[in-house]
Amino acid sequence: MKTILYPPGETWPTLCRRPVSDTSSLTASVNDIIYRVRAEGDKALREFTLKFDKIAAAGLKVSEREIESAVSLVPDDLRKAIILAAENIEKFHRSQLIKEEPVITSAGVTCMRKNVPLEKVGLYIPGGSAPLFSTVLMLAIPAKIAGCEKVILCTPPGKDGKINPVILYSARLSGITEIYMVGGAQAIAAMAYGTETIPRVDKIFGPGNQFVTRAKEIVQSSGVAIDLPAGPSEVLVIADSSADPSFVAADLLSQAEHGPDSQVVLATDNEKTLRSVKDEIKSQLDKLPRKDIAAKSMNNSLFLLFNNLQDCVSFSNEYAPEHLVINTSEPWTVAGQVKNTGSVFVGRYSCESAGDYASGTNHTLPTNGYARSYSGVSTDSFIKKITFQEISSEGIRNIGPAIQVMAEAEGLEAHKNAVSIRLKSIDNV
Amino acid sequence: MKTILYPPGETWPTLCRRPVSDTSSLTASVNDIIYRVRAEGDKALREFTLKFDKIAAAGLKVSEREIESAVSLVPDDLRKAIILAAENIEKFHRSQLIKEEPVITSAGVTCMRKNVPLEKVGLYIPGGSAPLFSTVLMLAIPAKIAGCEKVILCTPPGKDGKINPVILYSARLSGITEIYMVGGAQAIAAMAYGTETIPRVDKIFGPGNQFVTRAKEIVQSSGVAIDLPAGPSEVLVIADSSADPSFVAADLLSQAEHGPDSQVVLATDNEKTLRSVKDEIKSQLDKLPRKDIAAKSMNNSLFLLFNNLQDCVSFSNEYAPEHLVINTSEPWTVAGQVKNTGSVFVGRYSCESAGDYASGTNHTLPTNGYARSYSGVSTDSFIKKITFQEISSEGIRNIGPAIQVMAEAEGLEAHKNAVSIRLKSIDNV
Repeated sequence: MKTILYPPGETWPTLCRRPVSDTSSLTASVNDIIYRVRAEGDKALREFTLKFDKIAAAGLKVSEREIESAVSLVPDDLRKAIILAAENIEKFHRSQLIKEEPVITSAGVTCMRKNVPLEKVGLYIPGGSAPLFSTVLMLAIPAKIAGCEKVILCTPPGKDGKINPVILYSARLSGITEIYMVGGAQAIAAMAYGTETIPRVDKIFGPGNQFVTRAKEIVQSSGVAIDLPAGPSEVLVIADSSADPSFVAADLLSQAEHGPDSQVVLATDNEKTLRSVKDEIKSQLDKLPRKDIAAKSMNNSLFLLFNNLQDCVSFSNEYAPEHLVINTSEPWTVAGQVKNTGSVFVGRYSCESAGDYASGTNHTLPTNGYARSYSGVSTDSFIKKITFQEISSEGIRNIGPAIQVMAEAEGLEAHKNAVSIRLKSIDNV
Repeated sequence: MKTILYPPGETWPTLCRRPVSDTSSLTASVNDIIYRVRAEGDKALREFTLKFDKIAAAGLKVSEREIESAVSLVPDDLRKAIILAAENIEKFHRSQLIKEEPVITSAGVTCMRKNVPLEKVGLYIPGGSAPLFSTVLMLAIPAKIAGCEKVILCTPPGKDGKINPVILYSARLSGITEIYMVGGAQAIAAMAYGTETIPRVDKIFGPGNQFVTRAKEIVQSSGVAIDLPAGPSEVLVIADSSADPSFVAADLLSQAEHGPDSQVVLATDNEKTLRSVKDEIKSQLDKLPRKDIAAKSMNNSLFLLFNNLQDCVSFSNEYAPEHLVINTSEPWTVAGQVKNTGSVFVGRYSCESAGDYASGTNHTLPTNGYARSYSGVSTDSFIKKITFQEISSEGIRNIGPAIQVMAEAEGLEAHKNAVSIRLKSIDNV
């Protein structure tokens, strides 16, 4: 824990710096995986699954029967919890699907934007110690709401050679029926270029390890869109003297347990709060099953004391955290000044883990300072907004002369001619 | 002109392929420019401007006096045309600024999204033969509507060592007062990392040559967002027997004159239309000042005859053109089936050049098949949508148990604890 009292403004850029993870050393091996998948398709996928997951996968596509039978393997209380979360995610993401009205810009000139779903999207869900079924909901539900025709999901097999049933259940609940048992950079390559079994998609979503992240970056430059640039998870908590230190400590630790590279920041205007939160962390940390991970991450955490809440939020805006928890007596006053973050948790009961699972907001958010320029995943992420314009003969009469003058001034005579030829035909009628 | 009658479906992917422009050979020199600008700031900018633009620029920032005096240098009719275009662009882009209502997902759980402008954006306007003042409007007006605090513009000097007055005038009209005379990869590097004079921005917009494009790709991977991946401009025209061949020819040629690598495609269900359009092109081409460029681009153009309009639009959806002109007797029937494109021009009088300048839609659009997954620039491009959630004690009672169960199932005990500690405190009250 690095504690800094009243950091002067000129030190903020340094405090905001995230650890640089250089993945360039991975590039050669990831490129090799991508190359092999493009060249050999399913054969390469089977070989990489054997090599990395130690599983001789007979077939890549998960059978409908297997998906169906997963339902009964999910405990009742977990199933109910997932259904509640799915309903909230659905409500909030459905509200984002907004139809826009046409706009008449000049008489006879009508412009509009139409929401058109991406045709084919691919979701990646990593394997590893914890089955991230919540991310299935966060990606599959907006895809369904947007109306994507094809939504596929790739996830690696567990040690038992199977996909965790909670992932299968969450996928089925969210309307996904096409699930492929393949992970890592090879899964990204398969979705980017297609194989005999796995279809090529237009956009790839989802978290992953360094290989997956690097693969997403590489395929992005060859025409496949990706959700967001990736980075370790982050939380910044703004707390004043009204905050319960045990709540603040719990929120910081819930971020810290994600991984040793998680970024945890407390910004407060009260020195006593700062000290109490640190004490609380020590006592809560010991009881956590993932305390080794959380402790490592807490080593790099920042505990910052500022003169006032205004400075706290100014610092937060410069830091641009993925998650921002505002635990102050008048949280909306602070919230109103927020400029750069992924998602904001307003008030004492709004813990960050609520947004991770069940409040309804999306948990796929910009990290690493990208919140300055990127939004988190939303229904918009699965939609293109195509513009349309219809110009009548009256319309081209109204704006045609302006187009002619401007095209000529840009030296584009053929652009002008496309108008002239139409105006002439109208005059001749 | 490549004419293909009834291309079978299996040939479509090949027909949809764009020429691959390999810019990897530029990488070393672009990286060198970026490195020098990061290390030496303004000094490097002055050196590169001397080297590439042959101008010994005394200062980089354009003075207010110079911007003001540009007004009188713009001819009256051009000024009026620009004002009309700006008004239409403003109307349409202002309609895109939609405030969303809060959503109560569970009792006591309120979620909302708020539009927050990007703080600092940088616009790049290339120099070259034609001054692209229309692009100034297309980028600066949405930035102003979004409410960006700082909007800067970089553009190289002309041969006379000055910036074209129409660019200065368009910038001033759109509310930009911070203009820097610097072009190329060095301008992109300056906006990405900042120099003594030029501020660092959060997102970079605008077209450019291969150096600029490569520089945008490189800086994107280090935390600066960019508008869109770049590629040569494209149009696909769907025409039936009702279309005036001279209109269609004019639209195809207006695309062709952009550059020798422009992509021009006609899809029709009528062989006579196909032949007439080709004849028209020959006769119109000869009169164009940029006929050499247009002729080169026409060499690679595709003239495709299909069995019916349904096939035309299916092909277009696979091609995913930047611009789609629908010149048929019932254009909205065709328009309703459009899935992948940047902007659609509906009906005989809706020429593509209208969207380039004055209809109100944006002309910064996805090329190279990116229309499958990207939208064009809009007011959204200058906005982040930050999510907020407020959870009351009732709210955490309602969704808390679900969060606890899900967090435990994902092996994230500290996430669970952030809820447990709150529920316990409520019970104790």
